Amino acid sequence: MIIDFSRAVSLLHDNDNFIILTHANPDGDTLGAGFALLCALRKLGKKARLVNNDPIPEKYRFLVSEGDDFEDGFVLSVDVADAVLLGNDVQSRYGAEVSLAIDHHSTNRLFAKESYVEGESASVCEVVYLLIKALGVEIDSSIATRLYTGCSTDTGCFRYTNVTPRTHRIAAELIEHGARHGEVNVRMFETKKPGFLKLQGLCISSLEMYFAGRVCVITITQKMLRDCGCGEEDCDAIVALSRQIEGVRAGITFKEKKDGTYKVSVRTHESLDAAQFCSAFGGGGHARAAGCQFDCMLDEAKRRVIHEMEKYF
Amino acid sequence: MIIDFSRAVSLLHDNDNFIILTHANPDGDTLGAGFALLCALRKLGKKARLVNNDPIPEKYRFLVSEGDDFEDGFVLSVDVADAVLLGNDVQSRYGAEVSLAIDHHSTNRLFAKESYVEGESASVCEVVYLLIKALGVEIDSSIATRLYTGCSTDTGCFRYTNVTPRTHRIAAELIEHGARHGEVNVRMFETKKPGFLKLQGLCISSLEMYFAGRVCVITITQKMLRDCGCGEEDCDAIVALSRQIEGVRAGITFKEKKDGTYKVSVRTHESLDAAQFCSAFGGGGHARAAGCQFDCMLDEAKRRVIHEMEKYF
Repeated sequence: MIIDFSRAVSLLHDNDNFIILTHANPDGDTLGAGFALLCALRKLGKKARLVNNDPIPEKYRFLVSEGDDFEDGFVLSVDVADAVLLGNDVQSRYGAEVSLAIDHHSTNRLFAKESYVEGESASVCEVVYLLIKALGVEIDSSIATRLYTGCSTDTGCFRYTNVTPRTHRIAAELIEHGARHGEVNVRMFETKKPGFLKLQGLCISSLEMYFAGRVCVITITQKMLRDCGCGEEDCDAIVALSRQIEGVRAGITFKEKKDGTYKVSVRTHESLDAAQFCSAFGGGGHARAAGCQFDCMLDEAKRRVIHEMEKYF
Repeated sequence: MIIDFSRAVSLLHDNDNFIILTHANPDGDTLGAGFALLCALRKLGKKARLVNNDPIPEKYRFLVSEGDDFEDGFVLSVDVADAVLLGNDVQSRYGAEVSLAIDHHSTNRLFAKESYVEGESASVCEVVYLLIKALGVEIDSSIATRLYTGCSTDTGCFRYTNVTPRTHRIAAELIEHGARHGEVNVRMFETKKPGFLKLQGLCISSLEMYFAGRVCVITITQKMLRDCGCGEEDCDAIVALSRQIEGVRAGITFKEKKDGTYKVSVRTHESLDAAQFCSAFGGGGHARAAGCQFDCMLDEAKRRVIHEMEKYF
């Protein structure tokens, strides 16, 4: 059932022993909102703890705040559009008993008993900020920093078109409440490992352009990762880079796996369907981001990919 | 002479035939503020044109707005901390007759007859926004987009610690006035020339680390710029990169100018004052971003900079 803002505030006000669920592979928004809500509810004298399916990535550990021990409680989720996104373990334990979902995905499947969804909100932290304010909690620096982190990370630090005037106004208020915005942004956006920069340099050196610069191919080998002290987690930013090159409509990254086969990631701009392209090789994904696999040699894989790309140009 | 806000408004209100000067090697803030002010003054029925020393970089051409033809006029500067920063030609023509400087550098040398300086403002576009509002000009999408560009580029898209609650509130108002924020941010932050990526690769290869990784030095030569098909406008992102390396407290970029001398840009994290550091070499700027010049050979300049840096570590 879809509920309105005041009903969501009442549910938070009238209950206790909150079990706050985040989505699997947690990001800055789900963790920022979850831990900010946890702190706020505890400031109201309530008990709360956060439950998530996966380890919290190192870069988000500063968001963690200790919770309480208790048995059963009022289960709520933040930033979770579908019970399946809770992750296997959390879904099987709590998926069927979520009393309140607080979300900003207009695609929310309404898996909870009651759902408060603001589809136009850039981050769920914006929504949680307004709920905490309505609960009458005094927003301290620690709550503000957590909420700011979600506002910032879910908008690429206010870059994306999901940003609204409200996003900026809430950011202003959070900074006034003591959000350590500079520190958060340095941590989230401005810290690059020297090894990653070296990897990026190697990838750029190996850049191949096709179709008058409209397609670029980047290759990442296991040797490059070893030489730079990098891992799989560093490859995402390289894949994202492939599409940022001026004039490029499709960025294709060949990433060697440990067994010597290649994973291919395709990133495109409007009008070129990455999922459709990858389906030619048994892969899939989204319209702007998709992938496929190759067991053959790198040269042969590249030849086949470029040959397939000819159909689009 | 330092003047207050209302005097600055009066000067804009009471004069006509405005010659608006930007700083040399113009960036998004000086051009955004200059052209927004030009549009606003023309909406008041006044004549105005913009004068700058250098060609306007391709990425900022969308900020350009046509000006008027007239002989002498009221000369004002935006975002110019010192007459020398106007560039040789503009300085020799107008340097001694600037009637009003509108600036956000607390180090402003007060070279103009009257100076309105908001040292705490993240961008000069924030200041110009408030001036335009006070002049009673209706802010349209075209003015808002220009002002947003300065607010966004001078803060690394709201990432840096120079951002204040006011910065966000003004961004909110500019979006409400029709600023095309998503388009500006893709253009400014999400589009990379292949040549720029090559330059970045070369710069990373030439990276020097000092003081146990707390200081990094990047060198950009004219040959590197030529080899990569890059220009001055591509150097800003390299300068920003210098501070993004994990563990780095101060990033120092040596950029060779066309005459073979070096411009040094310093970017720091909290606790290390870049303006103070650069003042040792006759330079200046902001606490986290400052610069200075060297006429000597590169090796000598580096030796002197590193020697000065010893005082901080």
